[in-house]
Amino acid sequence: MLLLSREDIKKVFTMKDAVEADKKAFQLVVEGKCDSPIRTNIQAPKYDGSFLFMPAYVEEMDTASLKVVNIFPHNIDRGLPSSPAQVFLIDGTTGIVEAVLDGTYVTQLRTGAATGAAFDLLAKKDCRVGALIGTGGQAATQLEAMVTVRDLEEVRVYDMNPERTKAFAEQMNEELKSYGARIVAAASSDEAVEGADLLVTVTPSSRPVFDASKVKAGATISCVGAYQPHMQEMDPAILPRASKIYFDSEEAVLSESGDILIPLDEGIITKEDFTGDLGQLIKGEIPGRENDEEIIVFETVGVATQDLIAAKAIYDKAKEAGIGMIWG
Amino acid sequence: MLLLSREDIKKVFTMKDAVEADKKAFQLVVEGKCDSPIRTNIQAPKYDGSFLFMPAYVEEMDTASLKVVNIFPHNIDRGLPSSPAQVFLIDGTTGIVEAVLDGTYVTQLRTGAATGAAFDLLAKKDCRVGALIGTGGQAATQLEAMVTVRDLEEVRVYDMNPERTKAFAEQMNEELKSYGARIVAAASSDEAVEGADLLVTVTPSSRPVFDASKVKAGATISCVGAYQPHMQEMDPAILPRASKIYFDSEEAVLSESGDILIPLDEGIITKEDFTGDLGQLIKGEIPGRENDEEIIVFETVGVATQDLIAAKAIYDKAKEAGIGMIWG
Repeated sequence: MLLLSREDIKKVFTMKDAVEADKKAFQLVVEGKCDSPIRTNIQAPKYDGSFLFMPAYVEEMDTASLKVVNIFPHNIDRGLPSSPAQVFLIDGTTGIVEAVLDGTYVTQLRTGAATGAAFDLLAKKDCRVGALIGTGGQAATQLEAMVTVRDLEEVRVYDMNPERTKAFAEQMNEELKSYGARIVAAASSDEAVEGADLLVTVTPSSRPVFDASKVKAGATISCVGAYQPHMQEMDPAILPRASKIYFDSEEAVLSESGDILIPLDEGIITKEDFTGDLGQLIKGEIPGRENDEEIIVFETVGVATQDLIAAKAIYDKAKEAGIGMIWG
Repeated sequence: MLLLSREDIKKVFTMKDAVEADKKAFQLVVEGKCDSPIRTNIQAPKYDGSFLFMPAYVEEMDTASLKVVNIFPHNIDRGLPSSPAQVFLIDGTTGIVEAVLDGTYVTQLRTGAATGAAFDLLAKKDCRVGALIGTGGQAATQLEAMVTVRDLEEVRVYDMNPERTKAFAEQMNEELKSYGARIVAAASSDEAVEGADLLVTVTPSSRPVFDASKVKAGATISCVGAYQPHMQEMDPAILPRASKIYFDSEEAVLSESGDILIPLDEGIITKEDFTGDLGQLIKGEIPGRENDEEIIVFETVGVATQDLIAAKAIYDKAKEAGIGMIWG
């Protein structure tokens, strides 16, 4: 069995690789080629925690995977990750577990890469300014995805906590130096959003975290944080302004995300306003951006197929490069 | 994270420990203290394979676990285990995965220990002869369980393949030498069963593997192999002769095992003939053996709680002894 830590993964797998893996995953989703039964959820009410088990199997790749991702919000107070995770990668010809990967990092990579895939496929060619709302555990890879797929001059970061915003911006300026974009802390959501070509929201908020009237024509927006029906970080007023609305998986979004469920319920949009899944665009079945004035919205909640494809791609590269620890 | 191989586990955890762990698990099952959602099963028809994911959570122990056990029958032809498995042990206060254990061995141990627990609680004190039908991957720990809980003089082993039976008996004679029981290869099922005080069947058979008329008064029988509705290794004629019928979990047995489902369907027994779950006996809620003439039957299909309790007990002992490999 090959054990792959965050550091091992970083050595062999770039955000560009992760974006390509997510594109492949989104295509497999719409082709119905991934068997991913509904995830098992066990509640741990004593700690406000949940254990989530997300299996997936792609027969044509002879690969299965299982991600264990456990959401324990109070971990933050103990300086621990709030969603610790591990991914098992399974040989689909023998059922033998062939790798364990740091699932927290795989999740961060594939979640950032979903935004990366959406921006790569849907954003204007010429984007200069990005905005990122939220500085939690998933924020760094969202930022990296933005600067990977577009050559940005500046990304403005905003979070309710100004200290955290400042610390995050400084750290990211250092880590993403090679991309050449300035990462700046914004004093308000409006300051971050005004004039931005790309906007990412990645918060657990139950109230919109930006003002739709501040979003400029031609912007592309990726909303990542709302994975439960009561969560809503997207200002629903953006939806009537958007000419196209895409999903990682419409089925998954409609089973989970308040960003879309609440506006549907309130009659702000109907299902007729949905453009489709990113995988359909990749397959050429639905249109993409048609001009530089369109506002385009992408909503992602994440699917197990992303974990499988990312884990397999990482494993193949690590094995070839002789990276990781062999056990058993 | 602590990584525990088969060799590591052997260093710190005996069959006696495993039997005590299973008793605790069976008690938790009847107390409803283990949250173990129905296992997720993904089929891989291309290889006649199945991926099974078995989660469990015991709040009062602050522990969760997930076993991945994948059944790939053609692995045998490639010299690979037919049910490779891994167990994740999860800290129930933080959701952090704290150990990965060789799940193939944990399964063998806890499955043998189920028989061990049943024989310990239900067999006559004075047992001299054991019989074991089946010499596959689960057979060795069944044999070890028998000689652990009763001081046997002889155990007769039978399998359809005489070469394999002989090789198995020789190997077990060596491995279990310290227990002092002779392990002998029997030429037929009848030869193994006649006069045996303890009988274990552990085969994937769809037809009974012993003749009930050969079972002597006072015998205790554990049937382990029939984990699907079409599987039947128990001669149903033993059921009307048995004065008591126990289960690891009646609910689990009635959802899976042809050993009980087929005789129920054929009217050979009714649910009124069931004595109850082993956990009820452990809690003193139902009677055990009342004299040395009773024939007693135990049917086990295995429950995820056994994996959790065994894995946690192994982990605690390994940590204390400084055994295993630390990763990440």
